[in-house]
Amino acid sequence: MTYSVSLGATYLGDGRCRFHLWAPLAESVAVQIVAPEERLEPLTRKERGYFQGEVAGVVPGSLYYYLLDGQQLPDPASRYQPRGVHGPSQVVDAKAFSWSDRCWPGPKGKDLIFYELHVGTFTPEGTFEAIIAHLDDLRTLGVTAIELMPVAQFPGSRNWGYDGVFPFAVQNSYGGPEGLRRLVDTCHRYGLAVFLDVVYNHLGPEGNYLAKFGPYFTDRYRTPWGQALNFDGPGSDEVRRFFIENALYWLTEFHLDGLRLDAIHAIMDKSALPFLEELAAAVKLQAERLDRRVYIVAESDLNDPRVIRPQELGGYGLDAQWCDDFHHALHALLTGERNGYYRDFGTLGNLARAFREGYVYTGQYSAYRQRRHGRRPHPCKGNQFVVFTQNHDQVGNRARGERLSTLVPFVKLKLAAAVVLLSPFVPLLFMGEEYGETAPFQYFTSHSDPRLIAAVRRGRREEFAGHNWTGEVPDPQDEATFRRSRLNHGLSLQGQHRVLWEFYQQLIQLRRELPALTELNLENMEVITCEEDLVLFVRRWSRDSEVGIIFSFSNTATAPTLP
Amino acid sequence: MTYSVSLGATYLGDGRCRFHLWAPLAESVAVQIVAPEERLEPLTRKERGYFQGEVAGVVPGSLYYYLLDGQQLPDPASRYQPRGVHGPSQVVDAKAFSWSDRCWPGPKGKDLIFYELHVGTFTPEGTFEAIIAHLDDLRTLGVTAIELMPVAQFPGSRNWGYDGVFPFAVQNSYGGPEGLRRLVDTCHRYGLAVFLDVVYNHLGPEGNYLAKFGPYFTDRYRTPWGQALNFDGPGSDEVRRFFIENALYWLTEFHLDGLRLDAIHAIMDKSALPFLEELAAAVKLQAERLDRRVYIVAESDLNDPRVIRPQELGGYGLDAQWCDDFHHALHALLTGERNGYYRDFGTLGNLARAFREGYVYTGQYSAYRQRRHGRRPHPCKGNQFVVFTQNHDQVGNRARGERLSTLVPFVKLKLAAAVVLLSPFVPLLFMGEEYGETAPFQYFTSHSDPRLIAAVRRGRREEFAGHNWTGEVPDPQDEATFRRSRLNHGLSLQGQHRVLWEFYQQLIQLRRELPALTELNLENMEVITCEEDLVLFVRRWSRDSEVGIIFSFSNTATAPTLP
Repeated sequence: MTYSVSLGATYLGDGRCRFHLWAPLAESVAVQIVAPEERLEPLTRKERGYFQGEVAGVVPGSLYYYLLDGQQLPDPASRYQPRGVHGPSQVVDAKAFSWSDRCWPGPKGKDLIFYELHVGTFTPEGTFEAIIAHLDDLRTLGVTAIELMPVAQFPGSRNWGYDGVFPFAVQNSYGGPEGLRRLVDTCHRYGLAVFLDVVYNHLGPEGNYLAKFGPYFTDRYRTPWGQALNFDGPGSDEVRRFFIENALYWLTEFHLDGLRLDAIHAIMDKSALPFLEELAAAVKLQAERLDRRVYIVAESDLNDPRVIRPQELGGYGLDAQWCDDFHHALHALLTGERNGYYRDFGTLGNLARAFREGYVYTGQYSAYRQRRHGRRPHPCKGNQFVVFTQNHDQVGNRARGERLSTLVPFVKLKLAAAVVLLSPFVPLLFMGEEYGETAPFQYFTSHSDPRLIAAVRRGRREEFAGHNWTGEVPDPQDEATFRRSRLNHGLSLQGQHRVLWEFYQQLIQLRRELPALTELNLENMEVITCEEDLVLFVRRWSRDSEVGIIFSFSNTATAPTLP
Repeated sequence: MTYSVSLGATYLGDGRCRFHLWAPLAESVAVQIVAPEERLEPLTRKERGYFQGEVAGVVPGSLYYYLLDGQQLPDPASRYQPRGVHGPSQVVDAKAFSWSDRCWPGPKGKDLIFYELHVGTFTPEGTFEAIIAHLDDLRTLGVTAIELMPVAQFPGSRNWGYDGVFPFAVQNSYGGPEGLRRLVDTCHRYGLAVFLDVVYNHLGPEGNYLAKFGPYFTDRYRTPWGQALNFDGPGSDEVRRFFIENALYWLTEFHLDGLRLDAIHAIMDKSALPFLEELAAAVKLQAERLDRRVYIVAESDLNDPRVIRPQELGGYGLDAQWCDDFHHALHALLTGERNGYYRDFGTLGNLARAFREGYVYTGQYSAYRQRRHGRRPHPCKGNQFVVFTQNHDQVGNRARGERLSTLVPFVKLKLAAAVVLLSPFVPLLFMGEEYGETAPFQYFTSHSDPRLIAAVRRGRREEFAGHNWTGEVPDPQDEATFRRSRLNHGLSLQGQHRVLWEFYQQLIQLRRELPALTELNLENMEVITCEEDLVLFVRRWSRDSEVGIIFSFSNTATAPTLP
């Protein structure tokens, strides 16, 4: 299959717009234009449940619904929902933006240093526009890519983004498609790549109209977030097309440098050509067409090398995956926490394994999972794993959303930063960690359905009650929970916060300058543990350069014995 | 993991017996011996929910139950259920049988010609013992392996075998473990291999006590036959062990030459080391220990080469798979049927594709499945695919269970036989097809629960109502349905039946004697179709031998134009 971006409303210029919709459950479909002037334009039924039509006299900015056998619904591939998830869709002229990044080649894999950012809480304004003022600081810090948490339209204005229901529409409260384009273009001018978190494993519970159009969902599998998307049942070719076009859309029409696929372990698919493999191949082909480097990074809980293995060896061929094991090994050592999944971690040996192979669990029994878990990823490269001391999940999925800065002493923040930034993997920082932000990152929503609001509130409480959590769980729907989670950039100039920021900057500089740290070659590395002294010794080398790093996790100042 | 056969009751000699049970849900477990003398022997709790104990004064033939916190249950790994699925388990001395097949090396893959056989209907007696009298005829026919439909203990005495609930127990009404051992030993003396159909994707609905012992099942996935087995959730290591030990048990203690895995597409498993891959590796290791050739053949509906790809290329490493596409292409051509899945077939080109690649669907859109289906298996060998004109499913899953012999003229039976036996794949005959048996093979059961009986009856009717079937569907529970499905071996001596039998024999002889037909090399083959004349021309060659075969599907006698 060859894919291009064709679903939704494509503005063709000269007042002409092409509408293209998959609605196999409908007998008839019409476009109902509601602004600037009311009109009704019937679409023509094509093969396999598609409806199409080219309509004249439609200007960018026009608002429309689809009428499916008379039922008024927004466009599943809407580019913009200016009035939110329940309102009309808007025609957007994808070619109107004047890009200034023509020579941008995309980042090199081994140069990537991610900065994960939630648009709503990164600045008081909570917009793409407001991020731009901070790009200079990020460049000075040394990160090379910002990774936006999902921006697909979600209900209300406060959400992590994983409740998105219009995969092609850029969140209205963030500044819509125009705002995102400006941000990406400016980032590229600053030499920063931009990655986007996309959710192809479920849709949010509010404003999700997809099931009215076709068999987007299946009840053959269960996911933690409700109905699984249909990637292998009847009609699944078209569901795949919807999401593959979505990936190409972001990379092509927004000049994004890569995507982070949320929770691929919840993508259920038994087909001979798995959706993820097809997606990876389509993106590689598009990167060739675009003539720049583009990446797909997966969040995966499977410890399954198939995710990142090349296609010719039976893998999906994704470029990299998040490495939770590395985080858990580090976090358990730093904090002493042993609850939940931290139960499987806590020794220096765990962290040494993560350094050597990315995964800690490569087939051993996991007490938390109550089964053997994972598989050796060998052979692999360091740039196939993204590592972090914190991220939105590891912070935000704690009952109170505490950052590491409020859990461990200052000196351990420095230790954590060094472990991640001097590792042979691709580092990811979570916004604010570079200066030890103390604000929590809590779970927040702004649904409109009172029953859903109550269900989310209850679900959150019950989740933590299950973890023997006794304190108060912040109310996700309360705006104060959202406000509490905002960054206080001013902190970064003060006292130890400033010291930490400079330490991050220096570590990044070391990483970028020393060939032994730049080459992410797991072969050229020796890892030695001294469990007694709680010291991890890492030696890394390249042709002309060698680095020895001593990580001491001890709470007492001991002079480690060097090997 | 290294596996051996250790679950269940293992008779150690000298009146000693070791009991080994996984029952993580139980607080305490005791063995309740009920014959020859009542006794109670508590077992000791070991790690991960295992219970174990070595008990003295237990003789082979002793009957026992487990008491799980006082609840009386048969052994999940019972070797024998002399009183059926609800009765006590029996201690069997696996070493008592005196084998005479010490020098048997196991069959070579390319020599395999399967004869699929249902023990209950192959003879009037319906026992292993009664099969033995027919082995000479089978050897004369030329098949090299019999493949038994499942013999694991099922409820009652009439069942295809897919309702089995004691995977280690040999069906009592067939003659139990002793009977099966005698059959295998005799087959090996006749130079015949024996394969067994095993069901690792579900358990039957009656007498299934497994869920009382531990998390054998999961509700995270749905299968067509109820709860999915738990191969990737908490506790799944032990579920895997149960089934892997089962595979080793058949191969080791019954000298079987291979297993046919039923419907692996219903084995749900997202783990990094899939159950099927682990099973294949464990079986390969055991074959090395046993120092003979052993095979695992899968029934798969996925058209996914991963099933048969070697492990180093990301596959499960199973030896071969059933090739339904080949059957459907041939059946649709022969009968003109286009209902159900035959909708996707019917051209000579389909059959040509099956000859070239095994699968017909390698990524094309399937109208029946309403999605693209399959993937090219290239590179592969002919001995990785098992092909057939009929099998228990293709005959028995018709509303009235008609064999091909009652659907097409005699000459087409010969054509069908030639297509399968001269193909570059491994042929499988369904018992009786070699002489054009006219008895149907219908779906039959002998459950004891009236509600279940009614549900099965209703399910069967509804299934065919869905296929627009208007005639009467035979009652599965009626003994007449079973009796009607028995072979009439006497037919094979009469008229055209005898002609057909001799034709099969000659085809098999050709296949075994001509090097061009013996080598299952898909490279050394040319397949040409003439859709107009309905002629398929196949040229196969080896170093010193070449064969040209003309298959004419036309109903009129035409002289085909040779290419």
